[in-house]
Amino acid sequence: MDIYQKIGNLYTEVREHNPLIHHITNYVTANECANIVLALGGSPVMADDIHEVAEMVSISSALVLNLGTLNYANLETMLLAGAKANHLNIPVILDPVGVGSTSFRNKAAQTLVKNIQFAIIRGNTSEIMAVAGIEVHTRGVDSTREFAEGKRVAINLAKRLKSVVAVTGAKDLITDGEHSLICENGHPLLSRVTGTGCMVSSLVGVYAGISTDKLLAATAGIVSMGIAGEKAFQQLQSTDHLGTFRIKLFDQIGSLSTEDFIKWGRLNEL
Amino acid sequence: MDIYQKIGNLYTEVREHNPLIHHITNYVTANECANIVLALGGSPVMADDIHEVAEMVSISSALVLNLGTLNYANLETMLLAGAKANHLNIPVILDPVGVGSTSFRNKAAQTLVKNIQFAIIRGNTSEIMAVAGIEVHTRGVDSTREFAEGKRVAINLAKRLKSVVAVTGAKDLITDGEHSLICENGHPLLSRVTGTGCMVSSLVGVYAGISTDKLLAATAGIVSMGIAGEKAFQQLQSTDHLGTFRIKLFDQIGSLSTEDFIKWGRLNEL
Amino acid sequence: MDIYQKIGNLYTEVREHNPLIHHITNYVTANECANIVLALGGSPVMADDIHEVAEMVSISSALVLNLGTLNYANLETMLLAGAKANHLNIPVILDPVGVGSTSFRNKAAQTLVKNIQFAIIRGNTSEIMAVAGIEVHTRGVDSTREFAEGKRVAINLAKRLKSVVAVTGAKDLITDGEHSLICENGHPLLSRVTGTGCMVSSLVGVYAGISTDKLLAATAGIVSMGIAGEKAFQQLQSTDHLGTFRIKLFDQIGSLSTEDFIKWGRLNEL
Repeated sequence: MDIYQKIGNLYTEVREHNPLIHHITNYVTANECANIVLALGGSPVMADDIHEVAEMVSISSALVLNLGTLNYANLETMLLAGAKANHLNIPVILDPVGVGSTSFRNKAAQTLVKNIQFAIIRGNTSEIMAVAGIEVHTRGVDSTREFAEGKRVAINLAKRLKSVVAVTGAKDLITDGEHSLICENGHPLLSRVTGTGCMVSSLVGVYAGISTDKLLAATAGIVSMGIAGEKAFQQLQSTDHLGTFRIKLFDQIGSLSTEDFIKWGRLNEL
Repeated sequence: MDIYQKIGNLYTEVREHNPLIHHITNYVTANECANIVLALGGSPVMADDIHEVAEMVSISSALVLNLGTLNYANLETMLLAGAKANHLNIPVILDPVGVGSTSFRNKAAQTLVKNIQFAIIRGNTSEIMAVAGIEVHTRGVDSTREFAEGKRVAINLAKRLKSVVAVTGAKDLITDGEHSLICENGHPLLSRVTGTGCMVSSLVGVYAGISTDKLLAATAGIVSMGIAGEKAFQQLQSTDHLGTFRIKLFDQIGSLSTEDFIKWGRLNEL
Repeated sequence: MDIYQKIGNLYTEVREHNPLIHHITNYVTANECANIVLALGGSPVMADDIHEVAEMVSISSALVLNLGTLNYANLETMLLAGAKANHLNIPVILDPVGVGSTSFRNKAAQTLVKNIQFAIIRGNTSEIMAVAGIEVHTRGVDSTREFAEGKRVAINLAKRLKSVVAVTGAKDLITDGEHSLICENGHPLLSRVTGTGCMVSSLVGVYAGISTDKLLAATAGIVSMGIAGEKAFQQLQSTDHLGTFRIKLFDQIGSLSTEDFIKWGRLNEL
């Protein structure tokens, strides 16, 4: 079956199954992540008290760990929730926001990948390289390294961690270490709205919550946001800019179809 | 006087009195709650350090306790703020977000209702049933139980706690244990935007901040959001969806009138 | 050179230099602040764990300390980050949100101005008076005192702290103690959207991140938001209100030009 058909089917199945996606995430983009999960057809829950995360993850279809405003207490909570999810075979997604920018974040990422089996890890080039233990000089959430180098690192990281690894940017790579896809969907304005990376990780979490094919789930999340970005941009009027673009992203994610994936999708094997 | 006229008058009075509404709330929907309070004509303040909440609540017209991203520290802060508000006869509103989903939240809700006299408690069916101590199997913030059962439980809970209890969903029930109203306003898209429940609780808080009639205040908050949802939906164009709908909710809450309550209101006694 | 030309040049330079702006801020408006920084052409990073803020501020062009949802732990973190920024000569901006409303906030503000050399302090009249140690009776984030009194206090505070001090409201004052500017841009709706004050402080932080002229940077941030507010309002259609206005603010901040500053700017020396 064609990959766009598969993604379109997955998109439809999300609405039927309405998976609950548990997030332990940052306070900057938590609202956007909740709304993008709802737009796709899932149910978000954000809970981060150590007294309840194990119980919350037990009723969830996927767990998304996002390091945006990481703090010491949340790291401990993430480890507990991740262990529980692994025990119950619930997929765990890592968004290593800002890893590479401080040694605190670097150590946290190493602790997480050492203790939790991640189904999918999604970040920009700098973040993925930092997760792989390669020294980078990042400035917060911006990627400065080259995509070519990132590809090689991501494939090796996927093999080593037995995770799907996705590097997103102007072009995106999604790999399980064996098979790799390149996605060329997206729009430059996506990089000028905060949380579009976080939202992609949440979309990936939703798809992973209903599919055992993690490479497909990661690809579906990434291509969904890319197409939504292109379609949102196409609808902007002359005086519209970043504010309106951001709102139209939610409009678009909520109204994609198999036809959209076929018409707009720009996926290729590496 | 007709109830829609009463609600319209209350809506006008909010703008005259500009009540300060203190929230101890979650980081997912705090921004939306602040903006909906401003749209209605109140002033929001979010403050949750234990060193200042008693002083902050003292200058406020109402206190809204929202359990969205509840943690152990905030629970203690809520108890302190609630006690102060009770002492000063400032109405306290409880939004038991996600209660029923973990034992931590269940215990927290029991501790809160045992120690604080709430003017109004608003939640979905699962949450209200869990507050009433009935075992539910909820998935985070989604309601799965039937409205009929919820009505009975809500009326008994209102009597027991001497609070107005509101159960919101496709239909809404507002009851003080003696008198009960059913509201049929609203739109299905409201359940696909995060924080619409939280926002209703904040609207209820604003109205409660200027009215001693708590049944009326709770009803006003619920019917305001319901009508805003219907009017917002009516204005959507063909490519608009959840993102634009969310923004138009704020447009509508900010520009309701007595005529709107009369024209759109669908309130009935139980 | 004309001040509007200078501000227009600064606006262009932001896009060339893309300064990283580190925020230790509140969870109510963090998303808005991140998006407004991106709209202006900077890169936001929000990080508040005490283990990483010194390292994060070291790679930043400015540090914004916002007291919106201040808590005891964050105060300690702010002191550490501020000391590091001062040591590295990175400008620090203070937004004393809600100072004047509780003794906890008053003490925190005094501790901060005693221990950190602020490049710029921006607040409403009540907040600035409270920072100056004058007893006010504020209600959260609302300013109740008169602008005239605020002007005198701000000028003295600027002299004493060797900081640029900005008082924003219906009219804005920006002063370094020697020179003072009045800005009459803006629109009343700005006071009915949460976080517009926080966003101004973030814009000020972006400009301060690329300019050693702190009076100019503060003025640029304030006049940018004022003009964006006027232009956003001008574009509203009959059924649009606070929700749409908020979104159009981001559209406008992202598409200003030197011509806009010249055409719309209403700056005068005191």
